[in-house]
Amino acid sequence: MADVSKCMPLSRESVVAAHQAIKPHVHRTPVLTCTTLSNFVSTPQTEHDLKGTEYEGQTPARPKINLFFKCENYQRVGAFKARGAFHALSRLTDAELTKGVVTHSSGNHAAALALAAKTRGVKAYIVMPTISTASKIAATQGHGAEVIFSGSTSQEREAVVQDVIARTGAILVPPYDHPDIMLGQGTAALEFEQQVKDLVADKPALSVRGDTDALDAVITPCGGGGLLSGTATALSGTGTRVFGAEPSFEGADDARRGLKEGKRITTVKSLTIADGVRTPVGEIPWSVINDKSKVQGVFAVTEDQIKSAMRLLMERMKVFIEPTAALGLAVCLYNEEFRRLVEQEAGEKGWNVGIVLSGGNTTMEAIGKLFAAS
Amino acid sequence: MADVSKCMPLSRESVVAAHQAIKPHVHRTPVLTCTTLSNFVSTPQTEHDLKGTEYEGQTPARPKINLFFKCENYQRVGAFKARGAFHALSRLTDAELTKGVVTHSSGNHAAALALAAKTRGVKAYIVMPTISTASKIAATQGHGAEVIFSGSTSQEREAVVQDVIARTGAILVPPYDHPDIMLGQGTAALEFEQQVKDLVADKPALSVRGDTDALDAVITPCGGGGLLSGTATALSGTGTRVFGAEPSFEGADDARRGLKEGKRITTVKSLTIADGVRTPVGEIPWSVINDKSKVQGVFAVTEDQIKSAMRLLMERMKVFIEPTAALGLAVCLYNEEFRRLVEQEAGEKGWNVGIVLSGGNTTMEAIGKLFAAS
Repeated sequence: MADVSKCMPLSRESVVAAHQAIKPHVHRTPVLTCTTLSNFVSTPQTEHDLKGTEYEGQTPARPKINLFFKCENYQRVGAFKARGAFHALSRLTDAELTKGVVTHSSGNHAAALALAAKTRGVKAYIVMPTISTASKIAATQGHGAEVIFSGSTSQEREAVVQDVIARTGAILVPPYDHPDIMLGQGTAALEFEQQVKDLVADKPALSVRGDTDALDAVITPCGGGGLLSGTATALSGTGTRVFGAEPSFEGADDARRGLKEGKRITTVKSLTIADGVRTPVGEIPWSVINDKSKVQGVFAVTEDQIKSAMRLLMERMKVFIEPTAALGLAVCLYNEEFRRLVEQEAGEKGWNVGIVLSGGNTTMEAIGKLFAAS
Repeated sequence: MADVSKCMPLSRESVVAAHQAIKPHVHRTPVLTCTTLSNFVSTPQTEHDLKGTEYEGQTPARPKINLFFKCENYQRVGAFKARGAFHALSRLTDAELTKGVVTHSSGNHAAALALAAKTRGVKAYIVMPTISTASKIAATQGHGAEVIFSGSTSQEREAVVQDVIARTGAILVPPYDHPDIMLGQGTAALEFEQQVKDLVADKPALSVRGDTDALDAVITPCGGGGLLSGTATALSGTGTRVFGAEPSFEGADDARRGLKEGKRITTVKSLTIADGVRTPVGEIPWSVINDKSKVQGVFAVTEDQIKSAMRLLMERMKVFIEPTAALGLAVCLYNEEFRRLVEQEAGEKGWNVGIVLSGGNTTMEAIGKLFAAS
């Protein structure tokens, strides 16, 4: 990848430039609203819901929240990752790309890089753990990439990547820990902002205040932190607050904990159902997420809360999403700390809250397994 | 309901009038395209696929099909049924509605009528079999309707409806066998036609021929026949062909068989997974479906083919649908008779085929059950 020191600065202007570069290759994904879900998040939790939490016995918050959803599940390759991959390649010269690109990923970044490389006419090597599901391997190969297998620990995967680089001279395109990737992911927020402005200009009743104000806040999932930091970079200085959402399961809320401890947490070993965010935040995304003027908070939710939000998005809103995409709605519905913050800061007027539905890559079987026991 | 003899004629003009009447109450649902699925339906089946069918040993058809999807799963109450219900009520006077409305349905018509009645400020009685799923009962009650339980055979349900009418004086709004319902359901086709024209005018590459021609054909599911006959009425005289899609399981393909035998089939006892089309075609819809100038054919698919199409729509296109909504795509993918017809009639140029995704009311558990064994 491009030397980090030569990258564009992490500013809104750089995200605008990134957007220009990738526009021909990515979808301007739709923004949806849903009255039912907006009503749900604006209804106080019950005392029963708060039992066993630090809010037990207290009056549940009554935030007024009006939801907008940015549907990156309809993005190319079914996830926002296409934005970062296309942007990263646009920043590399043909000369730098002659030997191809390489990454390790069992998820959406693999397919995204494979597609971006194919589009550019460049060879892609994707290192995937042997335990990856057959459909994901097939999808990556379907985009013309060469899949190379490895063990599943990050050490094993990185060793194979180093092997590929040594053997082929391919250039590494990491999944999140690079400014070009972060700026690419941030482009979704630029569209989101404008689309909500257009929607409420056309139909002011869609806004929580019946006026043409746009997004008061945006929530994105936070795994490696590419999307969250890119979103915060895109929206910095606009007045729109940016929040992150994580699973609390097995310590996957590393960003939230790291902010509390004042120190980035570098290892996560969680098998949360939100498989897109099983990684710790990367170093460069952390520099943005750790800046309170850019990211105003990170909130965590349980596995059951993620499942419940996922069910509502599918059954009520009819959008097909992967569990990770349900994190933002789960925070709005169930994180009492977030709900109190909205009640306090937004008051009677309420907030227009934008939720990024990060991706839609799951299978009927995976859904069956998740919801069989419930 | 309004005396059939006093209804508007079954003409395109009447559908246009119906559309004007219901516009304030229904969504203009989006039309989506999907290159991947268009490529799939334009790929010949394998010889293996045709084994055991009447086409065994023959060369598989090579139709060129370009798909457009009308997403009525995003309609209010999650199905096209909202259109017919709102239209039926718009045709009744306040005097006729003083005693409320009644219907029997365990499915989408129940919720649709409940919503339309609530909007009009009218009481709704919905007769539902005691075996209905709890979530459907709750949804209907959630729209303010009074749910009255009955046995599950059509005789038992109709007896309870007659009871309600005798007791309350409520007026019956049938699910499909009435011109006002049919004309209401047909309004989706008017939008579909215009939306595809707008899409290809804006981006000619979206059309199969790269020109601004719109839909060559539309396929809808066929149960009671309200949607199919309404669509055919809306598009009559436009040059757009209209086809129906049915499950073959346990004789649920009553329209297809009836057309072959020249006689409407009045009983169906099928537990096809496409639960929206378990009923035989009604008498008035049949008068349209049996008119070759209006409906050019009805095709049937197997349960596995419905499941396979449903999987593609969910996993690839990321739209959340109920099994019935997958019927049209299943016909395009797997019905060799239909595929030959397209190859023959459309030739090298191919067809733009519109598929109505009729609804999205299913649950995570139902999906789990359907796909657990596969």
